[in-house]
Amino acid sequence: MTTLTPHHDGSPLYVSDLAPQLGDVVTVRLRVPAGYGPLSAVRTRSNPDHEPEWTDAALVGSADGWDWYEAAVTVRNPRHGYRWLLVHEGGRVEWLNQTGLHTLETLDAEDFALVAYPAPPAWLADAVMYQVFPDRFARSPQADTHPTPDWAIAASWDTPVDPVMPGRSQQFYGGDIDGIIEKLDHLVSLGVNLLYLTPIFPAASNHRYDAASFDRVDPLLGGDEAYIRLIEAAHARGIRVIGDLTSNHSGDRHEWFQAALGHPGAPEADFYYFTDDENTEYVSWLGTPTLPKFNWSSQELRSRFIEGPDSVVAKWLKPPYNADGWRIDVANMTGRLGDIDLNAEVRQLLRRTMIEINPDTILLGESTNDAASDLQGDGWHGAMTYPSFTRPLWGWLSDPKGTPFLTAEGVERTEPWFFGQPIGGIPAYTAQQFVDAVVRFTAGIPWRVRLGNMQPLDTHDTGRFATNAGEGTIPVAVGLMMTLPGLPVVFAGDEFGLVGAEGEDSRTPMPWGTEGDPAVAERLGLYRDLIALRHAHPVLSTGGLRWVHVDDDAVVFVRESADETLLVLAAKGDVDAAIPAGAMPGASRAQHVWGEATLAVAADGAVAVSADGPAFAVWRLDGVELPARAEG
Amino acid sequence: MTTLTPHHDGSPLYVSDLAPQLGDVVTVRLRVPAGYGPLSAVRTRSNPDHEPEWTDAALVGSADGWDWYEAAVTVRNPRHGYRWLLVHEGGRVEWLNQTGLHTLETLDAEDFALVAYPAPPAWLADAVMYQVFPDRFARSPQADTHPTPDWAIAASWDTPVDPVMPGRSQQFYGGDIDGIIEKLDHLVSLGVNLLYLTPIFPAASNHRYDAASFDRVDPLLGGDEAYIRLIEAAHARGIRVIGDLTSNHSGDRHEWFQAALGHPGAPEADFYYFTDDENTEYVSWLGTPTLPKFNWSSQELRSRFIEGPDSVVAKWLKPPYNADGWRIDVANMTGRLGDIDLNAEVRQLLRRTMIEINPDTILLGESTNDAASDLQGDGWHGAMTYPSFTRPLWGWLSDPKGTPFLTAEGVERTEPWFFGQPIGGIPAYTAQQFVDAVVRFTAGIPWRVRLGNMQPLDTHDTGRFATNAGEGTIPVAVGLMMTLPGLPVVFAGDEFGLVGAEGEDSRTPMPWGTEGDPAVAERLGLYRDLIALRHAHPVLSTGGLRWVHVDDDAVVFVRESADETLLVLAAKGDVDAAIPAGAMPGASRAQHVWGEATLAVAADGAVAVSADGPAFAVWRLDGVELPARAEG
Repeated sequence: MTTLTPHHDGSPLYVSDLAPQLGDVVTVRLRVPAGYGPLSAVRTRSNPDHEPEWTDAALVGSADGWDWYEAAVTVRNPRHGYRWLLVHEGGRVEWLNQTGLHTLETLDAEDFALVAYPAPPAWLADAVMYQVFPDRFARSPQADTHPTPDWAIAASWDTPVDPVMPGRSQQFYGGDIDGIIEKLDHLVSLGVNLLYLTPIFPAASNHRYDAASFDRVDPLLGGDEAYIRLIEAAHARGIRVIGDLTSNHSGDRHEWFQAALGHPGAPEADFYYFTDDENTEYVSWLGTPTLPKFNWSSQELRSRFIEGPDSVVAKWLKPPYNADGWRIDVANMTGRLGDIDLNAEVRQLLRRTMIEINPDTILLGESTNDAASDLQGDGWHGAMTYPSFTRPLWGWLSDPKGTPFLTAEGVERTEPWFFGQPIGGIPAYTAQQFVDAVVRFTAGIPWRVRLGNMQPLDTHDTGRFATNAGEGTIPVAVGLMMTLPGLPVVFAGDEFGLVGAEGEDSRTPMPWGTEGDPAVAERLGLYRDLIALRHAHPVLSTGGLRWVHVDDDAVVFVRESADETLLVLAAKGDVDAAIPAGAMPGASRAQHVWGEATLAVAADGAVAVSADGPAFAVWRLDGVELPARAEG
Repeated sequence: MTTLTPHHDGSPLYVSDLAPQLGDVVTVRLRVPAGYGPLSAVRTRSNPDHEPEWTDAALVGSADGWDWYEAAVTVRNPRHGYRWLLVHEGGRVEWLNQTGLHTLETLDAEDFALVAYPAPPAWLADAVMYQVFPDRFARSPQADTHPTPDWAIAASWDTPVDPVMPGRSQQFYGGDIDGIIEKLDHLVSLGVNLLYLTPIFPAASNHRYDAASFDRVDPLLGGDEAYIRLIEAAHARGIRVIGDLTSNHSGDRHEWFQAALGHPGAPEADFYYFTDDENTEYVSWLGTPTLPKFNWSSQELRSRFIEGPDSVVAKWLKPPYNADGWRIDVANMTGRLGDIDLNAEVRQLLRRTMIEINPDTILLGESTNDAASDLQGDGWHGAMTYPSFTRPLWGWLSDPKGTPFLTAEGVERTEPWFFGQPIGGIPAYTAQQFVDAVVRFTAGIPWRVRLGNMQPLDTHDTGRFATNAGEGTIPVAVGLMMTLPGLPVVFAGDEFGLVGAEGEDSRTPMPWGTEGDPAVAERLGLYRDLIALRHAHPVLSTGGLRWVHVDDDAVVFVRESADETLLVLAAKGDVDAAIPAGAMPGASRAQHVWGEATLAVAADGAVAVSADGPAFAVWRLDGVELPARAEG
């Protein structure tokens, strides 16, 4: 991989305004290695209203071996794509877009993009998220006062998880919100500042994605009062809290569904897709009858659920609850059915309501695959999505163990689970392929939205990364999660070293009390240190990204701002990377920050980075020097 | 380039139904070279409502060295994407999509796609289009009876084209519709069967894209009666006729605009984007005040223009006119302005009206760049678009001459014009880059729509290909236009060898009477022969496409159906291609059809194709043999 190439990304080094309004003129900058040209022209090519528009870039100066060009781009559409054109003397032409440099013309979908939709709160970029599955997190003494519900199979905290139906959805450990409150200081000690709770509404399953109401917190979890206490206690500790809402479906016990079922005249009759005249047959999520699918053409559904200050969406963001946002379950399918596609309307309306109530809230949408078409900044601030980080990471760093597991149907399987894809296991990626996959699946997403994309090693819906992690790769994986652009997400239990072969298997009750075990203590320390690293260096939240060395076994990249540069090495195998002079000005003043690796700078500025893999290491360099004439 | 790889495309060999309804089950087939595996699984992955769905493929048999797999795909969305998964024994995974084979996961946008929107008429795939710019095509005796209009600068047929304003738009040669009728037998002799006329409505320019009305044919062209005569005469010769409509804007002399201008209370007041209270300031196409932009949020505009049997769109498809469809000018910008995007509504409504009136009509949209996002089959049957064929072809086959030309502003330029892109001239592509660009810009378009994409060497908006064609490459270019999937388009005059450095310069009056010149006769013969080739072999219209050899100088591909296979060689330089055994079963029985090149088949079935470039050659092979168990 060539390391000394022209570079641009959506970060503040290169873009003067990340929250422009329509009609604003934004200054965009391109850095070109000295001697890369000579260039006879540098231009931007936008595509307002789908018709090309060009602006000339001017060379504003040179610094540290890079020539800096600036151009003005007028933001004409809410998602305003642009690319760079470099014309070499002699006529050779290059295009630069979010996938890199091209000789051929490039796709509109992979342009850089400015976004004029309302921006997410600034705090989103600084967040480190912690995900809690309430039934399995912590059980307060109050939980003992709640009877086991009719649908549940009671389990004690040390009962093994049963991944086979009906246990899969009915096994009930009784974790509750006061349990979470009692453990908030654990979150503080980790350094996380954003708590995401999977659903807390009443339901008939341990996961509660089959909501029976959106109007009250499940009494089994402690009810509304407990939720208020939790958010107050979290906020007092500097931790924000977001909930989880199912906009694709409710449970079949939901009060709206019960009102509609068999009652074609009910006000809720058109909230779902009933397929017979008596309202007894209906469309449901992947054919699961307990999860009837919402029909978003219903104006009354919109009013009750997502539109305006009296909606469900609004209610929980307002006092006395004051939640800080929503993660939307099955956001990808929401409003979509056959020839109907109301997804954009729903996500935009949902966000409009949130802005009305409290613009300082965030909205994340679940989409387990390529979500680029939904992630242009008009609604979701980011996605829970796996192809742009999690799956490539597993592909690179796993050493599949073939641990047997049971499916929901009770079938034993020995090939490692890979996100439900019937591909026979975890694919084996090189580091280069890891990078290629990250680039491929982030290229269609504006930088600003990319920063809001959840970047977990695993979640409640997946196996745990540690289950199949190659020896010594956990620090590499956690390190990449904390240092690549995107929202780091710790699924509760990962910091204790929990394993789990697939989603259900991963919903292990938290092993409180094991913090003193050496292996656990080490893992907890790793998380604390790397989260602290993220917080100590804002450049990891919002800085630019340049890959400076990629081979089969290792990735070296920099996150850059005018204030500081972090140089990151992530390697599965041994690495001995030669990085040409100029790629990282100021490397000779590099300060070692983390990990075991050596960095040597030759007299000409070339950098040698080497380590015995697996390795994760970080150095701090000076911020990027801009030429004097460039605007700050 | 590996030649023996698994293959699938949208053609009838591989897809059982190209015009499915929602809910239909379509059989899709994959062919895999014998010995490519062993494969432990072959599957399809669809993404209905943006959630993955998988089906297993079964090996149905082998034939001619290929294993054939079949799978069922249920069409769940109007544009239903799918890809293939191949799992090798041992675990290696491959994905096949419209860009080819991948180790990494692939983008949704580049899936193969079934389309459940109403299908285009079958005749579109069999069409060879001829484009006429009426002012410059032919002048009947009747034309002398028309006075020169107020806006025009009269020119005689042999006056050189003046590319500088005001001549650029006002120079008036007076070609008319009866002139076209007189020359219809020229079209017959060429073999074209679809005539596309640029606008024929009254206007104040020679190009008539500034319509003053959509309600009558320009009297200068002979009026409505002449148009009726033309279509009748064309139909009598088996030639269909489509018109050209500006849905983005009208002229400022348009009756609707004049009614609205300065009249905020007029019924037409909201047809345009007036920006002041007095309706005197307005938004126009790229700031050109003579071309006020339509505001498609106006219901009255929709009714008058595109919606229902009394609309403009309908009128000209009905008797007594009976036009066969529309090409829509500036389709890319239509309905788009800042944060407004009504493009999908407009194109869908427009097509719905056409289907109501006569479903046997076609609808093509102009989009000079990446049009994939608009080309999913919901409205446009295809696009006039350049990045997927025309520009790559110019890049590969040009030998830029540096012919000076004048811009609209009268500035002399010597670098070759390249579609208005300020990139310094025509980029130099290899044959491999030509193929890469074709693949890149067709990968986002369903096969069925790809077949409707206009595939010109040049148009009234571009320089003429011949101007900068490398020596001997004209047959290669015309040959590729006729043999690659897509709608061949002859811009009137190309068959006479006309040149032109840029769009205006290309609008030369037709050089009638030169047909006997040896160079013209040769060029006319080339067009006649290659159009005849297209018509003689339906596989060129609808057959599959497999690249079997690509290097820097040459492209070898096959178009395939169960009935026949055409093997095509296109080379700029000398070629000596070795194609492995199995790539083209039956090559030993190849019949030479066209061009100078040799084809030799070794005992093991390997094929050697060689020629002195430039070369274009075609052979006919047997149709593709399917295993007995595969459905026909």
